[in-house]
Amino acid sequence: MTSETFQLRVRVYYEDTDAQGVVYYANYFRFMERARTEWLEVLGVDHVTMMNEENRILVVSEANAKFLRPAVLGDSLIVTASLERLGRASFDIKQNIYRNSIDGELLVAGGVTAACLTADTKKPKRIPRSIFEEDSS
Amino acid sequence: MTSETFQLRVRVYYEDTDAQGVVYYANYFRFMERARTEWLEVLGVDHVTMMNEENRILVVSEANAKFLRPAVLGDSLIVTASLERLGRASFDIKQNIYRNSIDGELLVAGGVTAACLTADTKKPKRIPRSIFEEDSS
Amino acid sequence: MTSETFQLRVRVYYEDTDAQGVVYYANYFRFMERARTEWLEVLGVDHVTMMNEENRILVVSEANAKFLRPAVLGDSLIVTASLERLGRASFDIKQNIYRNSIDGELLVAGGVTAACLTADTKKPKRIPRSIFEEDSS
Amino acid sequence: MTSETFQLRVRVYYEDTDAQGVVYYANYFRFMERARTEWLEVLGVDHVTMMNEENRILVVSEANAKFLRPAVLGDSLIVTASLERLGRASFDIKQNIYRNSIDGELLVAGGVTAACLTADTKKPKRIPRSIFEEDSS
Repeated sequence: MTSETFQLRVRVYYEDTDAQGVVYYANYFRFMERARTEWLEVLGVDHVTMMNEENRILVVSEANAKFLRPAVLGDSLIVTASLERLGRASFDIKQNIYRNSIDGELLVAGGVTAACLTADTKKPKRIPRSIFEEDSS
Repeated sequence: MTSETFQLRVRVYYEDTDAQGVVYYANYFRFMERARTEWLEVLGVDHVTMMNEENRILVVSEANAKFLRPAVLGDSLIVTASLERLGRASFDIKQNIYRNSIDGELLVAGGVTAACLTADTKKPKRIPRSIFEEDSS
Repeated sequence: MTSETFQLRVRVYYEDTDAQGVVYYANYFRFMERARTEWLEVLGVDHVTMMNEENRILVVSEANAKFLRPAVLGDSLIVTASLERLGRASFDIKQNIYRNSIDGELLVAGGVTAACLTADTKKPKRIPRSIFEEDSS
Repeated sequence: MTSETFQLRVRVYYEDTDAQGVVYYANYFRFMERARTEWLEVLGVDHVTMMNEENRILVVSEANAKFLRPAVLGDSLIVTASLERLGRASFDIKQNIYRNSIDGELLVAGGVTAACLTADTKKPKRIPRSIFEEDSS
């Protein structure tokens, strides 16, 4: 199981903020999804191929976040993704958001549970083990 | 051709605003789509039925807006939709956004061109004349 | 403490959905905020007055949701809000999302913690007790 | 006046798409704003400094777009920004969106008019000429 934490840089634009002058709370979940997508792609999981060729989709079955400090317009954020639990048809991903760098202020501490489904029937489907195995080559 | 102007009431929530304290410009186009959807439904056009049963979709091929005055958090808006031009496979919809009522301040003056396509091939498809005909009963 | 569950009706438009054909997970948190806003307004809490006149804001400090069944384009949803815990400077709100009615399918079971802050200093501020007290008149 | 076209790469995530399986029309305007922001920053215009230190904001007073071909999930887009007209207190920006590269398919041809306002009074304010002048060094 890979122990590394994936990092994606995300810029805060006007679209992400609200009239309180900070990032709107639901938008952090969008940032988290961007990081998951790029992380899974690095691990060989491509959403488009999965859906069109393997008849499989990943869906978020649970999400949670603690909003510790607000991100503001112009911020450069680091959004992380790392595997926390791997089940048969679902896995938990830990996702934090930091200002500037992973050594900077922790703004959001969150996580999601992703479930693998057959795209048409929406039945749970086994996650290929290969995705999260350490490359031993 | 129906000459009435359809009106939909839309509330401004935090999600719609940005750090300038006003509604984010792209979100007015979302308000406009809500009004179009409800207006078309009144005219007998249901997006879900269209896509699933008639293999037809409506897509926006052009959009424009003048942002005259900003809407702010808590505003109660009226978003209008009315037919401006009916072509063979496309039609123009005029869409304005007012504060409080259609007699209130005009905030946004806009419009879109909607094109009718075959859902799978994405080829232009004729718009049923019946949609926009005056009910003569 | 009020024991009633507030209900807001929300329509699902194209803007709310994603390429999986269902409502995008982060957007349920937007629906939840709409219900909270309307509920708090009924309880006498107006975001705009609070921010401009009382120098107070409510911020979400925690959010969580279980996505049990997907909402789809055209759905008419009921989003609820009810007080679950009232602390000195924060409170927990339970928020569920149902299809059609509160007796319909439960799609999302969620909740948020809202914290009251002084708008400029962002320090925690006591929540007026009166908001959530039963009207004894 | 600078004649170069600024380019920003934008990835299409689930959040950007809708149930038609393509990018939701209003979201292209978000992509356009990202490119404008980065372009203006390269030209020395920082939104945060402008608002906080110079009491000036840029607002979009007009926007338009022709949606020629849809972008889909996973697409890597190029969003451009270039100056088309420079007025006293406003300027027009041409903004196109291409698949993969500026030599790829043109998906969206659009533009916005940006107006410079005094942040508190919302009165039009002169745009510093220096921003768009060719660097002659």
